Amino acid sequence: MNDNRRYAIKYLNMAKGQIEGILKMIEEDRYCIDISNQILASEALMRKANVEILHGHLKTCVKDAMVSGDGVEEKLEELRHTLTKMTK
Amino acid sequence: MNDNRRYAIKYLNMAKGQIEGILKMIEEDRYCIDISNQILASEALMRKANVEILHGHLKTCVKDAMVSGDGVEEKLEELRHTLTKMTK
Amino acid sequence: MNDNRRYAIKYLNMAKGQIEGILKMIEEDRYCIDISNQILASEALMRKANVEILHGHLKTCVKDAMVSGDGVEEKLEELRHTLTKMTK
Amino acid sequence: MNDNRRYAIKYLNMAKGQIEGILKMIEEDRYCIDISNQILASEALMRKANVEILHGHLKTCVKDAMVSGDGVEEKLEELRHTLTKMTK
Repeated sequence: MNDNRRYAIKYLNMAKGQIEGILKMIEEDRYCIDISNQILASEALMRKANVEILHGHLKTCVKDAMVSGDGVEEKLEELRHTLTKMTK
Repeated sequence: MNDNRRYAIKYLNMAKGQIEGILKMIEEDRYCIDISNQILASEALMRKANVEILHGHLKTCVKDAMVSGDGVEEKLEELRHTLTKMTK
Repeated sequence: MNDNRRYAIKYLNMAKGQIEGILKMIEEDRYCIDISNQILASEALMRKANVEILHGHLKTCVKDAMVSGDGVEEKLEELRHTLTKMTK
Repeated sequence: MNDNRRYAIKYLNMAKGQIEGILKMIEEDRYCIDISNQILASEALMRKANVEILHGHLKTCVKDAMVSGDGVEEKLEELRHTLTKMTK
């Protein structure tokens, strides 16, 4: 497993832990803005995880395709699609 | 607990379940773009949960402040801050 | 015109000026990442303008509706819709 | 100039035109949510322009670096930085 994926796992586990905390905050009827802030924080961790996955993808799958010349167009189209979804 | 918070709990639990699935996908060395798509899907659930929390906040805390006249400025400044963070 | 709208006009004019600069950068065949950074900067200005408009909306239209009790549901539903689009 | 950049120019010009329209809406004291919706629409155009620039970047600069082996790390680090900013 490459470093990018290890970092992604770290961020995803942190986000999961935060979600458990947020669920508890809601049960404890905590203030809305405090809950919202926590949701935003765990969203940020998800985005960091995704950047790691995509960075790793560029370093491996995309690079291999570009060097070999196999499936480059497909890889680029996938990335365009992902970029569009990420910034929708 | 109001409906908004119940929906928020539903979306947060769904997002948590998806994160567990994503962690498995990484362990199984699944394709990067498939993992990325799942992360984007769980991010979308987090955003839906946050919209529910803020919608509930407007309906209760903000409305009470505006009707009573107590703490309106503070509530509005909090919302501005949250809107800025949400769209950073 | 309220302060929020004056700030929104300022940010929108700045964004417009940046877009003109970006168009020039593309004509001059400047480096992609430099162009992308400028687009991200002008997007940030657009978001700031939108936060001003919504902050002003909360202070005026929403507050009036909540105090008078007229059209509150409609205002809240509009805001939910806008929040969802802002964070899509 | 490649197609990506031509599309980017098209989207940027559309966004610029919309901003001019939004400025007019504010001067005409139009309803806040209608203005907000227009700002969101022009933001979406900016994002589309950015996806075109980055797609073109992948097809040219990044691909050349990966095939030649020159400056790959630098290109990947730039992309990581841009992805992080795009999804902040």
